[in-house]
Amino acid sequence: MKISVQALSIDIFTHALGNLSAILEKGVAHATAKKFDSNILVGSRLAPDMLPLSKQVQIACDLAKNSAARLAGIEPPRFEDNEKTIEELRARIARTIDYLKGIAPGALEGSEERDIKVPAGERTLEFKGLVFLQRWAIPNVFFHVTTAYNILRHNGVDIGKRDFLGSP
Amino acid sequence: MKISVQALSIDIFTHALGNLSAILEKGVAHATAKKFDSNILVGSRLAPDMLPLSKQVQIACDLAKNSAARLAGIEPPRFEDNEKTIEELRARIARTIDYLKGIAPGALEGSEERDIKVPAGERTLEFKGLVFLQRWAIPNVFFHVTTAYNILRHNGVDIGKRDFLGSP
Repeated sequence: MKISVQALSIDIFTHALGNLSAILEKGVAHATAKKFDSNILVGSRLAPDMLPLSKQVQIACDLAKNSAARLAGIEPPRFEDNEKTIEELRARIARTIDYLKGIAPGALEGSEERDIKVPAGERTLEFKGLVFLQRWAIPNVFFHVTTAYNILRHNGVDIGKRDFLGSP
Repeated sequence: MKISVQALSIDIFTHALGNLSAILEKGVAHATAKKFDSNILVGSRLAPDMLPLSKQVQIACDLAKNSAARLAGIEPPRFEDNEKTIEELRARIARTIDYLKGIAPGALEGSEERDIKVPAGERTLEFKGLVFLQRWAIPNVFFHVTTAYNILRHNGVDIGKRDFLGSP
């Protein structure tokens, strides 16, 4: 069997983001049960100089969307970072998943050898497609999804690794 | 180019664990600068019912080691969970990386189609090799590496995502 870039990008990212959406829903349920405004979680952080939950979700979405688009050689749409509630963050995830599913698998074919450029602050990183997946896109998406999970978990939301992994 | 299981397991895991080792070293440097015992970090957690740093590192190592061995169809060595210091945790990582690098690439050839069984509590999960990588091994390793990072970051260690991603 040939392992495709589709399997390593769109499949992995849509699954991880779907699990993140379910985790966020549990955040809302926790807030409701404890009678606090679930939007307090949106601004929560693990350290004062770390990004809050909202940003972790937005960046996870953008990394998934932009990485898949870069591999496909297409220009990704830009999503505004204007979410203020968990429901809006979940809608952002849904929109990202829709975008990912709309990329034609053929567009990714052979992109493991494509030259990928990533603007990173003042630098431009350059990778071959496969290394881009191994060292940038996949670790980066999981970094932000896990950090969003950890922010909720640190705030008492009743989630476990099974929620993060989702159903196989 | 054929994308190999080697590229998706041993390459990804050794890189992620190498970065984790460097992050742990920064934890020691932080403790030294702030004049506290760096081993306090070993027992730190993000929530009282979450696993401490030591366990996050041990599990990240075991997931990498055992996942690669399962794909290769070989029995992994068992490592004792007896690390008490950051230096011992870094030695555990080094031992895991050595083990991973010692797996013959040929042993993983075609394992994307192999049937993989994972004992998970009372259940046994069954996956094809590729799905095992996508839904279990890769997310799981990054989950524990990121959580170890977040524990240190939450405790004031001066690390950033560049440390997590490492040099491409």
